[in-house]
Amino acid sequence: MKYRIEKDTMGEVQVPADKYWGAQTERSRNNFKIGPSASMPKEIIEGFAYLKKAAAYANCDLGVLPVEKRDAIAAVCDEILDGKLADEFPLVIWQTGSGTQSNMNVNEVIANRAQVLKGLTIGEGESFIKANDDVNKSQSSNDTFPTGMHIAAYKAVVETTIPAVEKLRDTLRAKALKFKTVVKIGRTHLMDATPLTLGQEISGYAAQLSYGLKAVKNTLAHLSEIALGGTAVGTGLNTPEGYDVKVAEYIAQFTGHPFVTAPNKFEALAAHDAIVETHGALKQLAVSLNKIANDVRMLASGPRSGIGEIIIPENEPGSSIMPGKVNPTQCEALTMVCAQVMGNDVAISVGGMQGHYELNVFKPLMAANFLQSARLLGDACLSFEVHCASGIEPNYKRIEELVNNSLMLVTALNTKIGYYKAAEIAQTAHKNGTTLREEAIRLGYVSAEDFDAWVKPEDMV
Amino acid sequence: MKYRIEKDTMGEVQVPADKYWGAQTERSRNNFKIGPSASMPKEIIEGFAYLKKAAAYANCDLGVLPVEKRDAIAAVCDEILDGKLADEFPLVIWQTGSGTQSNMNVNEVIANRAQVLKGLTIGEGESFIKANDDVNKSQSSNDTFPTGMHIAAYKAVVETTIPAVEKLRDTLRAKALKFKTVVKIGRTHLMDATPLTLGQEISGYAAQLSYGLKAVKNTLAHLSEIALGGTAVGTGLNTPEGYDVKVAEYIAQFTGHPFVTAPNKFEALAAHDAIVETHGALKQLAVSLNKIANDVRMLASGPRSGIGEIIIPENEPGSSIMPGKVNPTQCEALTMVCAQVMGNDVAISVGGMQGHYELNVFKPLMAANFLQSARLLGDACLSFEVHCASGIEPNYKRIEELVNNSLMLVTALNTKIGYYKAAEIAQTAHKNGTTLREEAIRLGYVSAEDFDAWVKPEDMV
Amino acid sequence: MKYRIEKDTMGEVQVPADKYWGAQTERSRNNFKIGPSASMPKEIIEGFAYLKKAAAYANCDLGVLPVEKRDAIAAVCDEILDGKLADEFPLVIWQTGSGTQSNMNVNEVIANRAQVLKGLTIGEGESFIKANDDVNKSQSSNDTFPTGMHIAAYKAVVETTIPAVEKLRDTLRAKALKFKTVVKIGRTHLMDATPLTLGQEISGYAAQLSYGLKAVKNTLAHLSEIALGGTAVGTGLNTPEGYDVKVAEYIAQFTGHPFVTAPNKFEALAAHDAIVETHGALKQLAVSLNKIANDVRMLASGPRSGIGEIIIPENEPGSSIMPGKVNPTQCEALTMVCAQVMGNDVAISVGGMQGHYELNVFKPLMAANFLQSARLLGDACLSFEVHCASGIEPNYKRIEELVNNSLMLVTALNTKIGYYKAAEIAQTAHKNGTTLREEAIRLGYVSAEDFDAWVKPEDMV
Amino acid sequence: MKYRIEKDTMGEVQVPADKYWGAQTERSRNNFKIGPSASMPKEIIEGFAYLKKAAAYANCDLGVLPVEKRDAIAAVCDEILDGKLADEFPLVIWQTGSGTQSNMNVNEVIANRAQVLKGLTIGEGESFIKANDDVNKSQSSNDTFPTGMHIAAYKAVVETTIPAVEKLRDTLRAKALKFKTVVKIGRTHLMDATPLTLGQEISGYAAQLSYGLKAVKNTLAHLSEIALGGTAVGTGLNTPEGYDVKVAEYIAQFTGHPFVTAPNKFEALAAHDAIVETHGALKQLAVSLNKIANDVRMLASGPRSGIGEIIIPENEPGSSIMPGKVNPTQCEALTMVCAQVMGNDVAISVGGMQGHYELNVFKPLMAANFLQSARLLGDACLSFEVHCASGIEPNYKRIEELVNNSLMLVTALNTKIGYYKAAEIAQTAHKNGTTLREEAIRLGYVSAEDFDAWVKPEDMV
Repeated sequence: MKYRIEKDTMGEVQVPADKYWGAQTERSRNNFKIGPSASMPKEIIEGFAYLKKAAAYANCDLGVLPVEKRDAIAAVCDEILDGKLADEFPLVIWQTGSGTQSNMNVNEVIANRAQVLKGLTIGEGESFIKANDDVNKSQSSNDTFPTGMHIAAYKAVVETTIPAVEKLRDTLRAKALKFKTVVKIGRTHLMDATPLTLGQEISGYAAQLSYGLKAVKNTLAHLSEIALGGTAVGTGLNTPEGYDVKVAEYIAQFTGHPFVTAPNKFEALAAHDAIVETHGALKQLAVSLNKIANDVRMLASGPRSGIGEIIIPENEPGSSIMPGKVNPTQCEALTMVCAQVMGNDVAISVGGMQGHYELNVFKPLMAANFLQSARLLGDACLSFEVHCASGIEPNYKRIEELVNNSLMLVTALNTKIGYYKAAEIAQTAHKNGTTLREEAIRLGYVSAEDFDAWVKPEDMV
Repeated sequence: MKYRIEKDTMGEVQVPADKYWGAQTERSRNNFKIGPSASMPKEIIEGFAYLKKAAAYANCDLGVLPVEKRDAIAAVCDEILDGKLADEFPLVIWQTGSGTQSNMNVNEVIANRAQVLKGLTIGEGESFIKANDDVNKSQSSNDTFPTGMHIAAYKAVVETTIPAVEKLRDTLRAKALKFKTVVKIGRTHLMDATPLTLGQEISGYAAQLSYGLKAVKNTLAHLSEIALGGTAVGTGLNTPEGYDVKVAEYIAQFTGHPFVTAPNKFEALAAHDAIVETHGALKQLAVSLNKIANDVRMLASGPRSGIGEIIIPENEPGSSIMPGKVNPTQCEALTMVCAQVMGNDVAISVGGMQGHYELNVFKPLMAANFLQSARLLGDACLSFEVHCASGIEPNYKRIEELVNNSLMLVTALNTKIGYYKAAEIAQTAHKNGTTLREEAIRLGYVSAEDFDAWVKPEDMV
Repeated sequence: MKYRIEKDTMGEVQVPADKYWGAQTERSRNNFKIGPSASMPKEIIEGFAYLKKAAAYANCDLGVLPVEKRDAIAAVCDEILDGKLADEFPLVIWQTGSGTQSNMNVNEVIANRAQVLKGLTIGEGESFIKANDDVNKSQSSNDTFPTGMHIAAYKAVVETTIPAVEKLRDTLRAKALKFKTVVKIGRTHLMDATPLTLGQEISGYAAQLSYGLKAVKNTLAHLSEIALGGTAVGTGLNTPEGYDVKVAEYIAQFTGHPFVTAPNKFEALAAHDAIVETHGALKQLAVSLNKIANDVRMLASGPRSGIGEIIIPENEPGSSIMPGKVNPTQCEALTMVCAQVMGNDVAISVGGMQGHYELNVFKPLMAANFLQSARLLGDACLSFEVHCASGIEPNYKRIEELVNNSLMLVTALNTKIGYYKAAEIAQTAHKNGTTLREEAIRLGYVSAEDFDAWVKPEDMV
Repeated sequence: MKYRIEKDTMGEVQVPADKYWGAQTERSRNNFKIGPSASMPKEIIEGFAYLKKAAAYANCDLGVLPVEKRDAIAAVCDEILDGKLADEFPLVIWQTGSGTQSNMNVNEVIANRAQVLKGLTIGEGESFIKANDDVNKSQSSNDTFPTGMHIAAYKAVVETTIPAVEKLRDTLRAKALKFKTVVKIGRTHLMDATPLTLGQEISGYAAQLSYGLKAVKNTLAHLSEIALGGTAVGTGLNTPEGYDVKVAEYIAQFTGHPFVTAPNKFEALAAHDAIVETHGALKQLAVSLNKIANDVRMLASGPRSGIGEIIIPENEPGSSIMPGKVNPTQCEALTMVCAQVMGNDVAISVGGMQGHYELNVFKPLMAANFLQSARLLGDACLSFEVHCASGIEPNYKRIEELVNNSLMLVTALNTKIGYYKAAEIAQTAHKNGTTLREEAIRLGYVSAEDFDAWVKPEDMV
């Protein structure tokens, strides 16, 4: 491999000649061989691209960066956002906890790429754009990383998670409406209980997701606040007057999302409670989705020896020999995602609680776990919606059989013949393995006509 | 011990003669010897008292319960709320997951106590008030327990947690204002950084708590929704028309909190995401408080070999021989509480995710963990406020010494003599263990007058 | 209430006249009003009683404590172990994280009670036994609390958890043996699969518990190491030569458990990884038990609309109207305990990871969570064994019906008539809702005799 | 892109022409677009390669597979282990929870690749090796995936985690020995305490890791048990006699690790407690490492305003302007890894607790989290060892200054002049900001000679 020499304040470093990154990126590559390379989420790099561009614009507006440099920086940022420089960000999550090295990675790539775009050669002559002085102007790792993290997190939640959960919720709502008259046995403690409709049952799932969506949305205001302008410790040292508000406006403009400057920059650097907060709501969604997916697979279990009240789509061969063995694979993928999100919530909380003084140094960990959760929940809800929920159909025959066979319907007789006789009917049917109707008539407590008139599951829902 | 005989549908049970509870309570006592007795939180029992009284009123208004019975039930509920029947609730958390047995415990105690209040003897003659038919009228364990849980949880958060956190937040805000001009060294990565004021540092803590309070309050609407009226599976079987809305109004009236009936009773029985949601916000507070308390004890560390920038109150002898060893015991209690809340969040989430069909049967677990967190956070914040935060004072001498001695102030010279000379000054001072001022003058880069004019920490915050 | 005056190095404190505790206990009572009073587990107090007595004996043997004082201290320790002084330990978990205040509580109670046992009056004249100089001799809170914690934890696991889990494991083993020929349908992905015996299924549960027990036992060596002798920072300052080994021998003698002195006292004070380690194994048990209890309730679900393959004991009325509704309440209690233990594991880990320098100050939190888990698991396993597992019986009729009705048995025909014909039989039966036998004969692929000879579930297990 | 047609029991599927995978892999690719593609860990694929080869050998030995097919299968397995087919495994973690689709992916790739190696064309004529009948012979997804998981997990722990932790432990032990006479101030509650040596302090870290290593090794016996031979539900249906033992022997031979067949296959399919158990020990290591790394960064904090007792290597520019600002970046990476492992432990436990009947369907989740933890801990310990721990040096000047300045040394005077005079000296020095020596002499309690003879930190360790 060919190398070129890059320098930083500690001296010279050999860098692959075909890469734009510089000395500090290369040092980090060598010093942090932890887990797979390039694990720093690309959404974070994109967040940096937005904020570097915004900073260039704000710096220019405020007179501390020439237009030419602004445009050069912005051009490379646009390339990053277009995915053209995807191989230029080799660093891992498990680096310095401030993310400094990824900030420098972005600074170095922008500077060197700008040099090339201008027709110059990297490392020859004066740099057109300087990584520290120009690209990182009015910034510090300490305020850029949390800003990039909030941009990435906000976008992931709003663009990936929420739409997918809403789609699933809407499908469940439609199913709830469609099956609103399908009377089935209810189950509490996993035991037979009084009836309800399949629509009512599914309406509970839809309601869970609506609450979860509301919970997530409640957190977005905090997440839309960005640290940029706080620089090293939150005081905003070395930023021009008005910079923090302006740079947030540009970020809002470039991303199309309502980002604003954080009113307290000390909090925004030293704590990442907004990440903890939103992820807490994602975890709530995981709790809900686990319940829903688990119910769906229990309701669809069988074909002969399970509950079998609903039919779910057959997406792949469940077993080469066993027809009708439709494994609830989408439920399984979704519940695995839920377990992951619950674990990620602990990782994020453990990171969030350990800030020290003016800086929390668990930023890359928190960002990576958050982004994984947001994406997995979104993708898994979509997958579950497309390949499972949208195809849920009642197994009418089975549902009817179970509800009619249920001893629980005896509740309807309480007000007609009194509690004790009703109980006797039920107990006798249970003992004999017969139906309520048979025993009610045999015991002489109710006529067949009355029984049919009084014991109607559809009136009990 | 003397016993009397009580009966239920399974037969006779011996019950302590001096207790009001009945057969089902006694069965549960015998069948669930798990952990200390009477561990079911008293706040849950109080929640039941509110809801039983409200149900009696609603049932009466709707014509299904006579006024005399309503008043008899209400009178015992008031006794429970006054703490007069504290020894009558011996059951544990670790019972049936629907809390049925605690519901029956309350029903039985109310029925038998009402019998006595009327001048009758328990077990003799027809019962005046029947546990199932009267006290539990229009109810099921499945909707009462979650209702009692929401009442208890809402009250704990609003009456205990929030006021205490607000008090601590206000104290920190006041400290932030008071120390807004106390310039001190900043620290990032635990390393010396550019200065800020002690007030700014503390303002970050106050901001964290404000965000946490907002997050908690965002969840209260969900928590204010109650399941009552759903009965066994959410359909509201056996409740009079309009009951759910009316009973919620009475609960709101009796508790003074804005409880409303849950729009979807299926969700309200089968899932307890409102508990998950609010506890997620409590966990966020724990994350914040851990950071704050940890900073406080690090800043107060010493007296000779630590950071020592702040002085905290001396509340108890730290060591019999070591004067000035003021152990940060309030920080320790608070951080232990934070760890507990983080654990409780997992317990609650694990319980919340495992609902089956129409019922979640992790209710007592979820309730107990929630109430512990809400109370511990409230109590610990109050304790921390009274015995620590309110007494925080700067150690002016130490703060001044550290900030003046800092090499980080060299940043101020960048714009005067250029980056390279500034760096040389700092490096020389670091190597020689001297001050920036000494080396700046010795190297001939800055005069003493200029140095004093240019290097002012107070201009860097 | 009457008070007497007690003193410590900070001055005078009013203490309830009828209590043995002194100034430092009283200060802690007043300074830490966090959660219910007296929450410090009594097992910890008992651990202290063992170690104070052992320390007195070791100190006496090594010539630094007179026999008379040794015996006086030991006499009070024995009273504590007999439960005679239960009201003398009012402190909470949420105090100083070293547990210093509970150490002093024990010291003070022993000193004052010894004064009274000698016929003297507390506070008058010279103290016979001094809390610090005599009771706490050769000790520090920093080594006593972890010692008391290990004593309590070891005893709880060995005396409560392990025997209960072993009892449940043995019962499951016996059931596995008893039902080893009961052929039933297997289920994977919750879907019908090839058969196995009920005994085989239950043998998996027993195996899980055996592995869990082995895992717990693997950790006991670490837990048997005690910190005593390390005093303030692990160096053993102010202890006589040989003290640490001797005091551990006395603790082993008094408790009947093989405690030894920790080879590295610095680790033993600054980290509590032994607690983390053993609790990790308890958490593994919780994971296993959750699976087992969940299977049991699913297998017992019904009576008409569930799986219904096993019958579990009916311990309490499930529903006043619904005969046969045997709620799996023991499963519910057990799974709630499992969720609690999973939460406690996080609390303990979060506490364990935050030691600073020479001391971990999350000791009471870690101890309390550990002891709760150990006790709850033990109690819940016993309860589950007595009230559920020991009464599990097959529902032979249902089991036979399901296995015979299963389409999965077609697998047996593969080797006789080839895969494709076998599959056609199964698919046709699934489509028509008929049996394999009917379709096999109708399609003309197999004779009735051959079918009965070839398709035998009992040969497939 | 070019495609070819592959078939399975559900019909035809278009597959990329240049790939070896077949219909079921392609269906999974399309049905599970959740998270980044190809996220199924390659270690799992390698585990499959070992077991497929071993199964081929065992099947051949037992007479159910010809030698020619055995060798053809083994040849492709060797290619997989050599990394030659890395692009052939595109599936994600978030698929069916049994990992069936990854099992089929391996089966299909082996079958098609064998076809090509034999000089035939995929899809033309009779397949030489059949994915289901030959490659998957005597196997089921249900026993192969857990086997692959155990192989991968065992190898990761034994080959990556343990050696790295041992290396770090050995380095810490060497440092402990080297600095065994460097007397420094101790700190408890973050406050100054009696002295110890730097070597003693570091010995505690080494001891923590030794305990952690022992804990991990204690779990390996369970992890070495493999499920293979259980097939679909644990009964071993369709396997030749003696197969399970023989296939485990081949796996042991091929991997060089002591794998054995699991004595209870029902447990081995339905529960993955071995994964829970070993990961519990990894989590313990994370708890230990977090404490160690946190201490190191606090001890190295400064350069002027922190503790500064040790010096750690400077690996990258901490700040462009601030010389001596050596950020503890390795500590940060390591503590982030610890937080991740704590989160992963919850994810694994949540997955482990939710097995149903004969199968746990959280296998890929559990495997992925386990392997991430094992690798990250190994890599991070190595990185920390190389770039930080091995370079730790005492800052002798600072250490001496702090210990000599400490008020805590007064403890040494207790036995010479009595507790009260000693305390007076300390209190006066604290009040006046002077040294003990100054005040001891000034107060006339001790002569200078006696002070110097009596107060020797080196005698207190």
